[in-house]
Amino acid sequence: MPCRARDEANHVTETVAAIVAAHRAGTMTPAQTVARSYQRIREHNDPAIFISLRDEKDAHAEAGRLAYPWLRLDGRPVPVQDNIDVAGLPTAAACLAFSYVPARDSTAVARLRAAGAIIIGKTNLDQFATGLVGVRSPYGIPRNPVRGDLVPGGSSSGSAVAVSAGLVPLALGTDTAGSGRVPAMLNNIVGLKPSLGLISNAGLVPACRTLDCISVFSLTADDALAALAVMAGPDDADPFSRDRPLAPLTTFPAKLKLGIPKSGQLIFFGDREAEKAYGEACKRWQSLGAELVEFDLEPFYETARLLYEGPWVAERYLVIRDLLASSPDAIHPVTREITIGGARPTAADTFSALYRLQALRRVAERTFAQCDAIVLPTAPTVYSTADVLANPIELNSRLGTYTNFVNLLDLCGLALPAAMRPDGAPFGITLLAPAGRDAELAGIGRVFHADTGLGLGAKALPQQPLAAVPAQAGPNEITIAAVGAHLSGMALNHELTTLNARLLEEAVTAPDYKLYALDTTPPKPGMLRIEAGAGHAIKLELWAMSAAAFGKFVAAIPPPLAIGTVRPADGRQAKGFIVEPAAIDGAKDISAYGGWRAFMAEKAKA
Amino acid sequence: MPCRARDEANHVTETVAAIVAAHRAGTMTPAQTVARSYQRIREHNDPAIFISLRDEKDAHAEAGRLAYPWLRLDGRPVPVQDNIDVAGLPTAAACLAFSYVPARDSTAVARLRAAGAIIIGKTNLDQFATGLVGVRSPYGIPRNPVRGDLVPGGSSSGSAVAVSAGLVPLALGTDTAGSGRVPAMLNNIVGLKPSLGLISNAGLVPACRTLDCISVFSLTADDALAALAVMAGPDDADPFSRDRPLAPLTTFPAKLKLGIPKSGQLIFFGDREAEKAYGEACKRWQSLGAELVEFDLEPFYETARLLYEGPWVAERYLVIRDLLASSPDAIHPVTREITIGGARPTAADTFSALYRLQALRRVAERTFAQCDAIVLPTAPTVYSTADVLANPIELNSRLGTYTNFVNLLDLCGLALPAAMRPDGAPFGITLLAPAGRDAELAGIGRVFHADTGLGLGAKALPQQPLAAVPAQAGPNEITIAAVGAHLSGMALNHELTTLNARLLEEAVTAPDYKLYALDTTPPKPGMLRIEAGAGHAIKLELWAMSAAAFGKFVAAIPPPLAIGTVRPADGRQAKGFIVEPAAIDGAKDISAYGGWRAFMAEKAKA
Repeated sequence: MPCRARDEANHVTETVAAIVAAHRAGTMTPAQTVARSYQRIREHNDPAIFISLRDEKDAHAEAGRLAYPWLRLDGRPVPVQDNIDVAGLPTAAACLAFSYVPARDSTAVARLRAAGAIIIGKTNLDQFATGLVGVRSPYGIPRNPVRGDLVPGGSSSGSAVAVSAGLVPLALGTDTAGSGRVPAMLNNIVGLKPSLGLISNAGLVPACRTLDCISVFSLTADDALAALAVMAGPDDADPFSRDRPLAPLTTFPAKLKLGIPKSGQLIFFGDREAEKAYGEACKRWQSLGAELVEFDLEPFYETARLLYEGPWVAERYLVIRDLLASSPDAIHPVTREITIGGARPTAADTFSALYRLQALRRVAERTFAQCDAIVLPTAPTVYSTADVLANPIELNSRLGTYTNFVNLLDLCGLALPAAMRPDGAPFGITLLAPAGRDAELAGIGRVFHADTGLGLGAKALPQQPLAAVPAQAGPNEITIAAVGAHLSGMALNHELTTLNARLLEEAVTAPDYKLYALDTTPPKPGMLRIEAGAGHAIKLELWAMSAAAFGKFVAAIPPPLAIGTVRPADGRQAKGFIVEPAAIDGAKDISAYGGWRAFMAEKAKA
Repeated sequence: MPCRARDEANHVTETVAAIVAAHRAGTMTPAQTVARSYQRIREHNDPAIFISLRDEKDAHAEAGRLAYPWLRLDGRPVPVQDNIDVAGLPTAAACLAFSYVPARDSTAVARLRAAGAIIIGKTNLDQFATGLVGVRSPYGIPRNPVRGDLVPGGSSSGSAVAVSAGLVPLALGTDTAGSGRVPAMLNNIVGLKPSLGLISNAGLVPACRTLDCISVFSLTADDALAALAVMAGPDDADPFSRDRPLAPLTTFPAKLKLGIPKSGQLIFFGDREAEKAYGEACKRWQSLGAELVEFDLEPFYETARLLYEGPWVAERYLVIRDLLASSPDAIHPVTREITIGGARPTAADTFSALYRLQALRRVAERTFAQCDAIVLPTAPTVYSTADVLANPIELNSRLGTYTNFVNLLDLCGLALPAAMRPDGAPFGITLLAPAGRDAELAGIGRVFHADTGLGLGAKALPQQPLAAVPAQAGPNEITIAAVGAHLSGMALNHELTTLNARLLEEAVTAPDYKLYALDTTPPKPGMLRIEAGAGHAIKLELWAMSAAAFGKFVAAIPPPLAIGTVRPADGRQAKGFIVEPAAIDGAKDISAYGGWRAFMAEKAKA
């Protein structure tokens, strides 16, 4: 069991969260963390992981200059895939003839740096991010640190291996058709493929500009989401960037519906171990309380065929058209063969494909109306480097079975370790949901990953207990205090849950209130603020919801109730129910119960 | 002045609104209205307007079967352009070899019928909706009823002429690059080009599937919006349809910013009359209270060039590819020449153009962040049929100067008559705004059109006084009652206006309230509901806002105020301000003033 969690004290500062905590506690400095990364890179001694490494002194100096406290990523050493611009380091996309030295950081890198990350180098990849195998680079094939004979996965081979091998806690890759997910599975780590446009692509060498996403590799879902939060946001420099605020991490919902493909639709290319591991992962979801619902995977497969057989390869062709004309021999032969095909499709082919894609998107929307997310294998099987070199195009395609359609359908994805197979190969699942639900996927994915008990990365570092989800509303959410029939499990709680409100925490009001039992159907209390300190502390629940949902919620509240400001005991303010005093004439004062639930329980007994 | 309003009694039932009113009043039956249309079609005697006319008895019978009351379009005779399916009538798109008889209505037609419209036939158009001139059809050139030597405009030539000549009050056209707007100008009528996807395109012969809109011709903006309201809505049969609720007609806003091109950017091809008429239209907007702000038109021109020189012609090619191969001679020679060019562009050309378009869309977004809408000439000039036949492609392109970029940029548009020139040619302007603002354009456009005093259509029918805008919130809006500092012109009114709330009307509460002056900064009242009938009627204003805006508004309201339910005297309910009773201890009872404004005025005097 080489990848089961071990309890070694020297591994507790391997995740981003642990490193940041150690820096804040003063038990390690950012400069020490950076030095440790360089030391490990030297010891690991795989020259195929990095295409260029930043001068170590330079990185140290930057780490030493970090302002304290509290940058969100302070002193994390982060390598960046070689198709993403880092000022002063060459961008080659694994093709020397294409190489240039950018004067400016890409937007994603600039935001990482602003949050305190230390960029240490550029990682290897399938040339021009074309491939899911990690063997299509003139800079060598990074060795898979989990099982050396397997391909590292691609295109983000170097970044995934660097994280898995413990060289760095976090790395950037890219994902157009699975490049940020397939290597995550093959390296027993987490791969977060954000919603299209959530991270700006300014300063990225495109693969398919309409489909590219910068992605995150890390040991845990929490680390990936933290990095995404730093990079996400609109950017005038990328017209495809979108202004869609990232929600905060959410708790595991009480009711979770996950889609799984209809019986017989999954393909494993004869890999019984993968099939078994997927079945066990589904059982794990059920044991965590998820309801599994079947959906039709065929429209997703059809979308994947559109990508492989359709016009999108013309986007890749556009990127290196000049190089194909001037120096074709400078390009990896497999990449060249694939990309040159992009010259063939016509505009008519393109529009035909866009029409079909639009119809398939609508089908996918209907699927996601029936469930919160879908769960698929990240890849149907694993291949050895030898196998892939012997059959480079077909085996590569097979690895994309469950990833190719994702960006075309505008989904976000989270690839998670799911099992370590008896043959020592990792197996992983991917959660997929419509764009914008990135944080929701992290919120459920982290619980699944913790439940597996799997060690992290190739070193099988022990998982630490999950941090509590902070009880806070998101940047565009409103916090509302429920005190009566809207409490969890009570008669009107559905009015909150159907508007996708989420429970943050339980609390009590300041002792400034009186609670009355109103004569309504269903029974409701009315809460009235009186002189400060002269009333009772009333139990409440804090819920978070979007402004639009809150607007609808308030609009539907009948008199004599109103939404004003309620004061929890800790001095915060939340929006909450208050009652018009005209309605409490003759109503029973139930303040002494300390809350509606206690009163209703007493009443039920009576 | 052939098109100035005349005051003829027999023309008062020419608009949709007037016809529906006459039907409801019983002064005319739907069957009579339909008969009148057929009679006028015979009298007008232009065989180039209709490609196929429905059997009159059939139409009469349907009109006689209409259920009363109150269908929204009861008994309106509506012709439909020949590229939109009507069950049982051939769809030819003005090409006999392409013709087929659909078994089902297009979604738009089905919704019109469901609202009581009587479909009477199929109108002529530039073949396959390719053209802005109206002369590219084997079914002849509909005579321009305003000035016979001018082209009727296209592609929707027959529909625009039928409305202008008074044959029907309403007609459907299509608009891909201006086909629903240029003919509106040339016929002195209104052309509404809805937001993309607002009307389903299921059952439409495509021109460019990613850009096509079914459009409305009518004599007034009110009629166009009423027809749009009937047809708008999502449709599973068209994957490009969008679920975006249409707002109700809005009042002319107190502050209106309209964009006009920077000096020197407008092109009139030497037509001084058009240039002068545009300048006068701008002055009219100013006299109506609009502020004119300059914007850069060049990115819009660049978008138009993308359409004409870019890959979108491949969409037209896809529609008739088979016909081009099998029966090229069946196609109009100009249409054939244009469309065959769609075989040439590559997928790479297409993606390049899509990248550039995405950047241009962002530029346009920034333009519309600075103004509520932009105002442009509908077309830069007018041309005679003889001129266009001599120079068919260049003059056609010129007519699209201000229309070609609109659908690519996802804008909605409203073409309005603006002037009748001394040479008897009509001049028109077009209002443009981002998708979703269709009703706002109608709300300002109707006021402009009324202010011109122009007669309607070729017959210069007198304009009737504008109907009052119904004071109601839209389907997704919430009505809120302001009673204090949020009243128009008061200290916190900006909190409503910055959230795009709009004033519906003034009213008073039921006599159930007391009003107190609170000790706050700025000064605010608190309104408390007491026993029914035992209080005062307090003046209020009703405002409408979106759920999301309302949510933000409520969230920002500080204690002791809350949003509950307020009861206007007419028995309605609205959300509105109420106060926590704990806050009015010692506050001055100002109920006798009957409202906050009266109290503040008194206080200012003191």
